[in-house]
Amino acid sequence: MFQDLTNRLLGGDRNALAKCITLAESQRQDDQETIRIILKNVLPSTGESIRLGITGSPGVGKSTFIESLGSYLTSQGKKVAVLTIDPSSPITKGSILGDKTRMEKLAKNPLAFIRPSATRSFPGGVSHSTRESILLCEAAGFEIIMVETVGVGQSEFSVKDMTDCFLLLMLAGAGDELQGIKKGIMEMADIIAITKADGNNVKNAQQACAEFQHALHLIRPDDNGWAPKVITCSAIEHAGMAECWDLISKFINHTKSTATFEQKRKEQKITWLHDQLNAQWRGQLMQNQLFGERWNEAIGKISENEWTVFEAVEQLTKRN
Amino acid sequence: MFQDLTNRLLGGDRNALAKCITLAESQRQDDQETIRIILKNVLPSTGESIRLGITGSPGVGKSTFIESLGSYLTSQGKKVAVLTIDPSSPITKGSILGDKTRMEKLAKNPLAFIRPSATRSFPGGVSHSTRESILLCEAAGFEIIMVETVGVGQSEFSVKDMTDCFLLLMLAGAGDELQGIKKGIMEMADIIAITKADGNNVKNAQQACAEFQHALHLIRPDDNGWAPKVITCSAIEHAGMAECWDLISKFINHTKSTATFEQKRKEQKITWLHDQLNAQWRGQLMQNQLFGERWNEAIGKISENEWTVFEAVEQLTKRN
Repeated sequence: MFQDLTNRLLGGDRNALAKCITLAESQRQDDQETIRIILKNVLPSTGESIRLGITGSPGVGKSTFIESLGSYLTSQGKKVAVLTIDPSSPITKGSILGDKTRMEKLAKNPLAFIRPSATRSFPGGVSHSTRESILLCEAAGFEIIMVETVGVGQSEFSVKDMTDCFLLLMLAGAGDELQGIKKGIMEMADIIAITKADGNNVKNAQQACAEFQHALHLIRPDDNGWAPKVITCSAIEHAGMAECWDLISKFINHTKSTATFEQKRKEQKITWLHDQLNAQWRGQLMQNQLFGERWNEAIGKISENEWTVFEAVEQLTKRN
Repeated sequence: MFQDLTNRLLGGDRNALAKCITLAESQRQDDQETIRIILKNVLPSTGESIRLGITGSPGVGKSTFIESLGSYLTSQGKKVAVLTIDPSSPITKGSILGDKTRMEKLAKNPLAFIRPSATRSFPGGVSHSTRESILLCEAAGFEIIMVETVGVGQSEFSVKDMTDCFLLLMLAGAGDELQGIKKGIMEMADIIAITKADGNNVKNAQQACAEFQHALHLIRPDDNGWAPKVITCSAIEHAGMAECWDLISKFINHTKSTATFEQKRKEQKITWLHDQLNAQWRGQLMQNQLFGERWNEAIGKISENEWTVFEAVEQLTKRN
């Protein structure tokens, strides 16, 4: 069964890909064992895509932007996968309600694959299977993987840590450009796209574009010779998508020519290794049925200065 | 012996404080046990200081700034402690060579205490005892703890995670303001001080101040109603220190009035708890004599796409 599923995945079978991602998201021990064998087998066929992180506040038009950029790319014959991370959405059997309908046109495109990522959480943090999903999409032959985050909790920071190029979507509009944008996100972006640059909004968008470009120039250090770029686009008028993709390609070529692409990929793997080691340790702790209760007690006691952190660790790791 | 050392620490004895920090930095099991008992005993006397993180590129004048601000504060009758994090410096018995001589005047001040923090490292990350040192300084009655980082590796991000107010020092100068500043640091700063605003440099500094203020306004979201502020100062002319302290006090009062002060302190404790749990786990792994060798092997194999991260974890955590 492994072998059949693996072969279908490598052949680009979308049902096999969906099935594999479901296994990666599953909390069942046997599913985890299965997917780890599959990942091991397909590993030589991974790593060849462009991994694109996309974030922006609610209302900025992430879905329409992704549908528009995705349609442009598929029209160029590219195979595009979209993974969504939304730790806040209700999850039903691994699928976020209503998500696919947000990108109706792209969802029907034979060159595209859209999949919301379910999340698994533990006290005090969020862990998920998006990295596994990226590898699986690559094994299935997808050339561009867009990882969309809806900006809850630390999800943008996680996405930055698993993609090659990080795109921030913003809206033009006096004073309210920053609503809902987290501290530090702007500095992480390699490219900023001002969305909804259409109709009466074109002039505003162009002005915002120039202002952000100037401010970024002042505030942000170049990253190995790459100065972050700001562009405008309109998903409704399908404008700016070719320019956007051109800029993404330039960024990727730049990082490949300076060897930062490979270096970043390597660092991301090491971060994953750290995360996975920590997850294994936490998994062992949480097998202790009292752990959840003890965790809450520990947080309360350290908050009230009743316990040192060391006492909390001792209580959390003791048997029974 | 615990009791005597604890009493002397609580009485503000600087030798006792230095001894306790040395214990916290020690890797010996018995020293760690001792300091954990002491921390437990002094815990009710901690938390009352203002914890100030200070960073900036080499050459920006961190030492002279700290000496100048520290002298201003001690002249107001405040007790000031300075802790330095420098993972790159040669460490001899817990003291960084030459560090005290950098702040000669402040070091002799009876109201000041200066201590470089030694660091303990493990493969792939840096762990240190600065959090313990902060608590110990508070127990000894210090009212303002300045934590200076020299900007190596991830140290600024760590310092942000253990202080109440984060101050970034920058130099004016066309185009080279950003040399050596890491991505994301500017967005973390609550206050930016343009140093060396003296002599011929005053005009440059004032202009840089206005430009940064404008750019920050555009780029950075307010943090619970606090817009990051930029000021100029001169450590040599002892100018701007009262204004700088005034701004720090305003920031602290603002965060206390919006309850973000307490919230941040609580989150920092939870982060410490996570870090400490992970450190304990790593400590267990590293008791295995082959761990270092296996770690390097694992990094190599995952880099070359020969192992999945899951295979690496399995290899790293197996016995023998």
